[in-house]
Amino acid sequence: MKGVLLARSPRTPVVDLCHEIDPQDVSGAALALRAAVPYYPAGCVFVVVVDPGVGSARRILWARSRTQQFLAPDNGVLSWLTEEHAVLERRCVRNRALFARTVSGTFHGRDVFAPVAAALSKGLKPARLGPALGDPVVLPWPGTRREAGGPRGVVLTFDRFGNAVTSLRSADVPAGARVAHRGRDLGPLRTHYAEVPPGRALAVAGSAGLVELSARGDDFRARFRAKTGDTVHVRNRR
Amino acid sequence: MKGVLLARSPRTPVVDLCHEIDPQDVSGAALALRAAVPYYPAGCVFVVVVDPGVGSARRILWARSRTQQFLAPDNGVLSWLTEEHAVLERRCVRNRALFARTVSGTFHGRDVFAPVAAALSKGLKPARLGPALGDPVVLPWPGTRREAGGPRGVVLTFDRFGNAVTSLRSADVPAGARVAHRGRDLGPLRTHYAEVPPGRALAVAGSAGLVELSARGDDFRARFRAKTGDTVHVRNRR
Amino acid sequence: MKGVLLARSPRTPVVDLCHEIDPQDVSGAALALRAAVPYYPAGCVFVVVVDPGVGSARRILWARSRTQQFLAPDNGVLSWLTEEHAVLERRCVRNRALFARTVSGTFHGRDVFAPVAAALSKGLKPARLGPALGDPVVLPWPGTRREAGGPRGVVLTFDRFGNAVTSLRSADVPAGARVAHRGRDLGPLRTHYAEVPPGRALAVAGSAGLVELSARGDDFRARFRAKTGDTVHVRNRR
Repeated sequence: MKGVLLARSPRTPVVDLCHEIDPQDVSGAALALRAAVPYYPAGCVFVVVVDPGVGSARRILWARSRTQQFLAPDNGVLSWLTEEHAVLERRCVRNRALFARTVSGTFHGRDVFAPVAAALSKGLKPARLGPALGDPVVLPWPGTRREAGGPRGVVLTFDRFGNAVTSLRSADVPAGARVAHRGRDLGPLRTHYAEVPPGRALAVAGSAGLVELSARGDDFRARFRAKTGDTVHVRNRR
Repeated sequence: MKGVLLARSPRTPVVDLCHEIDPQDVSGAALALRAAVPYYPAGCVFVVVVDPGVGSARRILWARSRTQQFLAPDNGVLSWLTEEHAVLERRCVRNRALFARTVSGTFHGRDVFAPVAAALSKGLKPARLGPALGDPVVLPWPGTRREAGGPRGVVLTFDRFGNAVTSLRSADVPAGARVAHRGRDLGPLRTHYAEVPPGRALAVAGSAGLVELSARGDDFRARFRAKTGDTVHVRNRR
Repeated sequence: MKGVLLARSPRTPVVDLCHEIDPQDVSGAALALRAAVPYYPAGCVFVVVVDPGVGSARRILWARSRTQQFLAPDNGVLSWLTEEHAVLERRCVRNRALFARTVSGTFHGRDVFAPVAAALSKGLKPARLGPALGDPVVLPWPGTRREAGGPRGVVLTFDRFGNAVTSLRSADVPAGARVAHRGRDLGPLRTHYAEVPPGRALAVAGSAGLVELSARGDDFRARFRAKTGDTVHVRNRR
């Protein structure tokens, strides 16, 4: 992919956003984008190739927010962008004249996304890509419910330290409420790791606005055999 | 290595080609080069430091294809370049005036390859590197035989998704033939993963022109305990 | 972090120094800096975010050597720089006007280090950062003793190949002396791996001036279940 970008648009700076998404983890990629996009300067083209359906009939999506462009498989990976960067316009990428001469069935990143991204970075008009797309695949924000005892969410993904990122917004945890993972109390929501002794598990207000589950100086995922989909409860002070 | 390149040739863009080769996996590196080189613009210097013999009497190789230059240990890592990028000229890198003042025995990437690559990127004449080299180490293309039932090959390496890359060219698999891994039928050669149901194993025409073995949405290497050298058969339709 | 740097200082080249430090491994980061800093051109700003105390009262340190600047948590990570790059001046980074508008408690890399690094790369006067800091946290060079039989040290960290980096300077191993790991003889100090047969364990003069323990073509850490803190002895020739 980098060779294609360098060959077709040699002056465009290329930044590696993330190489740590687990294979086929569309939710993990959607969260990584949600977290990173707000910190990039206007005028970027974000290329997302977490694409388990590569080569199939799944569509390829161009999208635009207020200040950025996106290229991604139409698999829901753009569903969780923050409000400020929500998608305002979508097209179906279909103009094969923009692709590599030969398109493999397993590496559209190289043969489709990279050449199209290079063209966009040099000013290609999005209307040239293909027709408007009105029915994108949407990834629903999973499993968060307001229950009697307090909000309930799930573990969405893990970072490289083994911290669990959950579907609960830190802003939705009332002062004094306690967080529990699969029924196990983790105490109140903390602002940083060193609020608890070394080795202790905690819930912390993560840097993307979501509640994270952690163990100080340790790997929460490994230690508690945590999995995506695990339930996370907030218990309001009685 | 990046510090040395930045210090000696600050305006040369540096691209990380691959950091995922298993330690000492010269075949894996040879395949990564085979796959990537055709997609880079003319005029690159490819620096390869998969170098288990570092510090020994193994020679250091400069090579040139029609449009690119290469620096690599003389361990066969350039043997599998595609025909279009085949090596046309070779030299033995020996001019110590181009190296770092002190050369460690375990990190020639930093002390030899990086300074020489910086010099080449600034226009150094290859004749200054050392004498022509006529007898490079060659890595034979492994284990592919034409047998009565159909061609037979081996697993060469794995990618980060756990897909097995084999020594069989996709173009050598006749229409309707079936592929088998260690005797286990994987069906006909597919063009993309979603041709089979989730979890199912398959053989697919990989993006570098070679047959790959995969499991849809899963890790073929882990699931079938596949190893480099495993036999892969093509069975022609009877 | 890269988005913030790109937004605030778009023309500053950014180099990824290392992404392979184990989580919370301050010693590993200190060694990586010791090894890399001497090879970078003058005028860099090194940003270090191996920061288990993020968000707590731990201070944030700006430091200056003869030719370079550093931003790091005040956790000792700058303690092991080589003499030529020893720290000459320190300040406590406190000027919140330089930080992001909102500072999370778990990602100062993005909200503090990146914006301050961008400002420094554009010429910010260090005096603007905060007051001089005279009592930095110091990480003592661990466990090296001169004993009757010869010097004794410990394993400090491991590289991605599984080689163990020790606290013993190669220059302190007398000619003819033998190195032992937890009492197990590894023979004399070698200059490169191929001095021993494939699979054999050895001690080698590493590229950062320290004794390393290795197994030719193999992973020393996994094979001998080596751990940081393991004792390493040098036994002088009798």
